Amino acid sequence: MTIRVFVTGGTFDKRYNELTGALAFGGTHLPEMLRLGRCRLDVAVETLMMVDSLDMTDAGRRRVADACRAAAEPRLVITHGTDTIVETARAIAAGRLDKTVVLTGAMIPYAFGSSDGLFNLGSALSFAQVLPPGVYVAMNGQYFAWDRVRKNRETGVFESIEA
Amino acid sequence: MTIRVFVTGGTFDKRYNELTGALAFGGTHLPEMLRLGRCRLDVAVETLMMVDSLDMTDAGRRRVADACRAAAEPRLVITHGTDTIVETARAIAAGRLDKTVVLTGAMIPYAFGSSDGLFNLGSALSFAQVLPPGVYVAMNGQYFAWDRVRKNRETGVFESIEA
Amino acid sequence: MTIRVFVTGGTFDKRYNELTGALAFGGTHLPEMLRLGRCRLDVAVETLMMVDSLDMTDAGRRRVADACRAAAEPRLVITHGTDTIVETARAIAAGRLDKTVVLTGAMIPYAFGSSDGLFNLGSALSFAQVLPPGVYVAMNGQYFAWDRVRKNRETGVFESIEA
Amino acid sequence: MTIRVFVTGGTFDKRYNELTGALAFGGTHLPEMLRLGRCRLDVAVETLMMVDSLDMTDAGRRRVADACRAAAEPRLVITHGTDTIVETARAIAAGRLDKTVVLTGAMIPYAFGSSDGLFNLGSALSFAQVLPPGVYVAMNGQYFAWDRVRKNRETGVFESIEA
Repeated sequence: MTIRVFVTGGTFDKRYNELTGALAFGGTHLPEMLRLGRCRLDVAVETLMMVDSLDMTDAGRRRVADACRAAAEPRLVITHGTDTIVETARAIAAGRLDKTVVLTGAMIPYAFGSSDGLFNLGSALSFAQVLPPGVYVAMNGQYFAWDRVRKNRETGVFESIEA
Repeated sequence: MTIRVFVTGGTFDKRYNELTGALAFGGTHLPEMLRLGRCRLDVAVETLMMVDSLDMTDAGRRRVADACRAAAEPRLVITHGTDTIVETARAIAAGRLDKTVVLTGAMIPYAFGSSDGLFNLGSALSFAQVLPPGVYVAMNGQYFAWDRVRKNRETGVFESIEA
Repeated sequence: MTIRVFVTGGTFDKRYNELTGALAFGGTHLPEMLRLGRCRLDVAVETLMMVDSLDMTDAGRRRVADACRAAAEPRLVITHGTDTIVETARAIAAGRLDKTVVLTGAMIPYAFGSSDGLFNLGSALSFAQVLPPGVYVAMNGQYFAWDRVRKNRETGVFESIEA
Repeated sequence: MTIRVFVTGGTFDKRYNELTGALAFGGTHLPEMLRLGRCRLDVAVETLMMVDSLDMTDAGRRRVADACRAAAEPRLVITHGTDTIVETARAIAAGRLDKTVVLTGAMIPYAFGSSDGLFNLGSALSFAQVLPPGVYVAMNGQYFAWDRVRKNRETGVFESIEA
């Protein structure tokens, strides 16, 4: 079973630029994380963009949705900033694909050592293997259908909502 | 949904004793790992024993199997040393429980920083939520039915076998 | 021998605020770092301020210099942002104290795991014990008299200059 | 100023062998640690042996002492297991070299993430630059003349003793 992972940026892949003292993007940490997790799934990693969740545009969301549609694999994982992950999930769901799409993110950059990213990646790849077709958000050890979830900005936790 | 986690020891929870220079067990790192993963599942952690995989006895396996039977929760995760994780899975499977039981472990102790443990824990908790009743081993980002898997001792990787 | 450490902020003590996604200050990591280093020196840690190097004002520098003068201990270490660490060293040197004052900083926040901070702290505390009275900057494993050093902003490295 | 670092093994460079589950030696972590510390000293790293402190023999100590004598550099740092670091310091001191020799070690392997090794390395390299000729042990943020120190095996801390 091959799982395609689309990288879009977000906290997951943020790093610290020691010359400027600012947070920045470089290449994705996904391959390193898969090695660390001793992952033996057949995973194809593809970077679509490297943007903050708050900088994700409608055009960006269409690109992600189009990539999901075009992918040969029926099981997809997407790394995304958490602030607008639900909006991107909605844009993908509008395509009514016969695929299992799991979006995940991180509250702490993987590069910063004490990240939830590795836990979330293990979780998202696992849900992607066994959940039926649909669009889901996997965070906090849980999965949510795209239309039943919101991020609580005050606590940083994803919560169930009524559809 | 509550998931009960039984801790049995293994590399997962090994630590370094700086006074003796030897590997040793202390308390489990599970609660710390769940915090790091920002896990919001209802998880009940229970330490059954703290032993090396190679020191797990038949009596120990019966204790684990009995604990699985006695648990009120239908979804269980077990942390276990990887060398004999399949034997313990078999002992549990003999009980023909109507529960989803996912065993997982780690190749590197969580306490040593570059561990696969956090990835595996995210993976095991996720599989436990969605797989049908049965006994499984979750390692390397994958899940295996208990009677279709073996650990390759030379590569450290779990492989599918014919039942 | 007691060494007093004055904390002023800088990259050394930056952390990631997971709710805002921005870098921020909280309490200092010095006590944790001293524990990690198994430091058994008699160290008194005192936070003077928590500011970015670029936000350090002349008034702030006077506060640091006054604290150095007022300290009972003849050996002082100061953590400081690297961009203006030399300016603060100059302000302290103007006081012509009969004390050994060692300023240090970090290029990567300690909280981000792969920091130079722990190395620099071990270095600064060591130089502070053995260098004669004077004001020094300790970075990159080296020490420099305050009037013989500059930070190369392009490489992030401290370099010797003619006085 | 060039500092020569002789690597002899010890906890400093221990790593975890994930296939055997045992502690083992591989190559030294010194170059990686110097990079992490952004060290810009001219450091020449030379591995003499890779042994546990308790496996260091008299012949091994002679090799270390001979290497110190033969080194062109007048300032040397030696990484060594902590249990017999003082014995090796004594063997070097017997040579009455006109060099500054600083031995250091670690209570926790560098590879295990929460090590004191980086702190100790920063400390040892700093003491080596400024202490007068002699043989010293640098641990716990402090330095000790070779004949005034012992390791307290119960606390893991180095203590001053009367010469």
